Amino acid sequence: MNNYSHLFSLDTASFFRSPVRDIFKRVDLNAIYSFAGGYPSADTFPLEDFRRIMSDVIDKVGAKAFQYGATQGVTELREALSGRYGVPLERIQITSSSQQGIDVCTRILVDPRDVILTSSPSYLGALQSFRSYRADVRGVEYSPDPEKFAEAYRMAAEKALSEGKRLKFIYSIPDFQNPSGETLPVEHRRMLVDVARHYGMLIVEDSPYRELRYEGEDVPTIYSIDPEIVLHLGSFSKIMAPGFRLGWIFGNPSLLDKIYVCKQSLDLCPPVFDQYVAAEFISGGSLDRNLRKSVDLYRSKRDVMLEMLDSAMPHGVKWTRPEGGLFVFLTLPEGFDSVKFYDMALDAGVAYVAGNFFYPDGGGRNTMRLNFSFMTETRIREGISLLASLLSEYIVK
Amino acid sequence: MNNYSHLFSLDTASFFRSPVRDIFKRVDLNAIYSFAGGYPSADTFPLEDFRRIMSDVIDKVGAKAFQYGATQGVTELREALSGRYGVPLERIQITSSSQQGIDVCTRILVDPRDVILTSSPSYLGALQSFRSYRADVRGVEYSPDPEKFAEAYRMAAEKALSEGKRLKFIYSIPDFQNPSGETLPVEHRRMLVDVARHYGMLIVEDSPYRELRYEGEDVPTIYSIDPEIVLHLGSFSKIMAPGFRLGWIFGNPSLLDKIYVCKQSLDLCPPVFDQYVAAEFISGGSLDRNLRKSVDLYRSKRDVMLEMLDSAMPHGVKWTRPEGGLFVFLTLPEGFDSVKFYDMALDAGVAYVAGNFFYPDGGGRNTMRLNFSFMTETRIREGISLLASLLSEYIVK
Repeated sequence: MNNYSHLFSLDTASFFRSPVRDIFKRVDLNAIYSFAGGYPSADTFPLEDFRRIMSDVIDKVGAKAFQYGATQGVTELREALSGRYGVPLERIQITSSSQQGIDVCTRILVDPRDVILTSSPSYLGALQSFRSYRADVRGVEYSPDPEKFAEAYRMAAEKALSEGKRLKFIYSIPDFQNPSGETLPVEHRRMLVDVARHYGMLIVEDSPYRELRYEGEDVPTIYSIDPEIVLHLGSFSKIMAPGFRLGWIFGNPSLLDKIYVCKQSLDLCPPVFDQYVAAEFISGGSLDRNLRKSVDLYRSKRDVMLEMLDSAMPHGVKWTRPEGGLFVFLTLPEGFDSVKFYDMALDAGVAYVAGNFFYPDGGGRNTMRLNFSFMTETRIREGISLLASLLSEYIVK
Repeated sequence: MNNYSHLFSLDTASFFRSPVRDIFKRVDLNAIYSFAGGYPSADTFPLEDFRRIMSDVIDKVGAKAFQYGATQGVTELREALSGRYGVPLERIQITSSSQQGIDVCTRILVDPRDVILTSSPSYLGALQSFRSYRADVRGVEYSPDPEKFAEAYRMAAEKALSEGKRLKFIYSIPDFQNPSGETLPVEHRRMLVDVARHYGMLIVEDSPYRELRYEGEDVPTIYSIDPEIVLHLGSFSKIMAPGFRLGWIFGNPSLLDKIYVCKQSLDLCPPVFDQYVAAEFISGGSLDRNLRKSVDLYRSKRDVMLEMLDSAMPHGVKWTRPEGGLFVFLTLPEGFDSVKFYDMALDAGVAYVAGNFFYPDGGGRNTMRLNFSFMTETRIREGISLLASLLSEYIVK
């Protein structure tokens, strides 16, 4: 048998590949200027802390750290998160990555054709997961006016209802959004909660970058505004290291109970040893220490990128000025095609992610996402300089 | 909002809880005689090897071991598996546990009401996953005569076709089956391949215990009989430690390609550091060394359990004599109810898994699964003695 097509599920036809992950298969990231991935800097991984903590876990926890664990996660880790974020234990589920958090929320909530409302642009990995369940994903554009912002969500909801669709949840990345880098003001967050309540929807709040703030004040989480309708997703990838594949969900216990049963059949439990390491990483103070260093490092990289953009980019190119996170989002002149331009840029040795991949309803071909966390400041300078000169040439043509 | 029921997906109504995992929430396993779980013995976790290998990985691989990794798994681990099992690299996908292997195979292949044929009894975690996608799971009884065995599968397939159903795959645990402990002879494996070919189905071969053989000769894997129609699932849980949550799938590259794209949206990639540790655990010889020790330990435990059953069990109770794996399966006299008996046994301090949970079409209430890997030989002796005396009393009544 060489043709399996009669065997695949309907979902399978809706799977689509991450262009970001496919870039990683094509090129060696260290051989080019890569603004493409959402990779944290390897300089933020405290290898000696990891070595010491791992050895301590073997001493203190012993064999239990290598046995099967509880589906909801290791108690020590849930307690550490509870202490850090002030969320009760019964409202905490550990996930095998915050990508799994997105996936499992979608799995328990969405049938084919059900509607998910999301900011446009939005995180690619979330769009992949939503589409894989054949959700009807509808992008809503941002407005700085909170009332207009809410109205856009209401209009999208009403339109879906008028088509006989079921509304399931609003997906939001309120802090230093991926890809835009922008942060949702508190009024906008309150408006989202109002809209969700009105339509009986949930909100999935995805906040992997929240603690990477380089200036300004924290904005309350959407979860803190209404913990009963918000599933809040957190991640160890940007505050510890992505290689552990650990995240968490905060939410109402009756929602978490469905996620718990689902997770039993998905993978039984999150990686156990890694959870003990993460618990000790928080409790022993490594996380806070490491976070301070990471924030300083990334602030400086962001500043370098913004300076370089200011000085090198041709007229007609605009970009966001994020207060945190990992990304700057560029908007190029109308008619520019960042997908076409991509191969030329890659041949010249610089990679980015074409912005259109982040738009659930298409569009955004004149945008691109640039990451500033992965490379050194020198390489950011050189890379932006190269990209700017390529763009200058291309736009003039 | 306190009632979320209008929001849940149709799949969610088909989730069911593992009674095994729920036992673990109710009682402290070390405070009772637990024959319930499928836990390996903590004595088989080579803590000092783990400590040394972890430190070596930090030295040799460095920060890369904590960064995001390839979706198909870390190359070093895929190479180590390729070397060990003689399977080409492009036919190997690493999974975040072999439970995830089951789940992702089901996800890419099964729509609601599609038919999966499985041995009856079969692994509970697989039944959970199949049901969670609303598969139509049909159990097929074993026959020692290969021709009758094949005929039972053919009849089940014909019946499903006559009802207008689509046949997707046969699920088999051919080596030291969970829960029965029995091994499928090679003629039966060939018959399964013939049936699958005839009906255009795949075979999902789940073989987590294959290397825990205490006597007798290896039987060829079903995958080796036809690598084009078999997805072979392996696990590090029983040969290294379950706390790493790592497994693998061998299969045709065009099947693995769908799994790859699906896994991107599930969790991006398996735990990275853990994969480097597993690669070194194989390459450096720890796995083989540890496996020899584990096999000796478990053989001895199995022998103790079988001796105790021989000497203590009342008349009318039968059990399997497994050549490997972790389980002995008991059949009690007709009319005995292992679900009713369960609470009484637990109150007296002994736990097992009631056999009916393993039967996809119901039945098996007079059976129970006993694990012999988890407890010490002394506790196995005491536990079987206690269970036998409770049973003697109960059966006579």
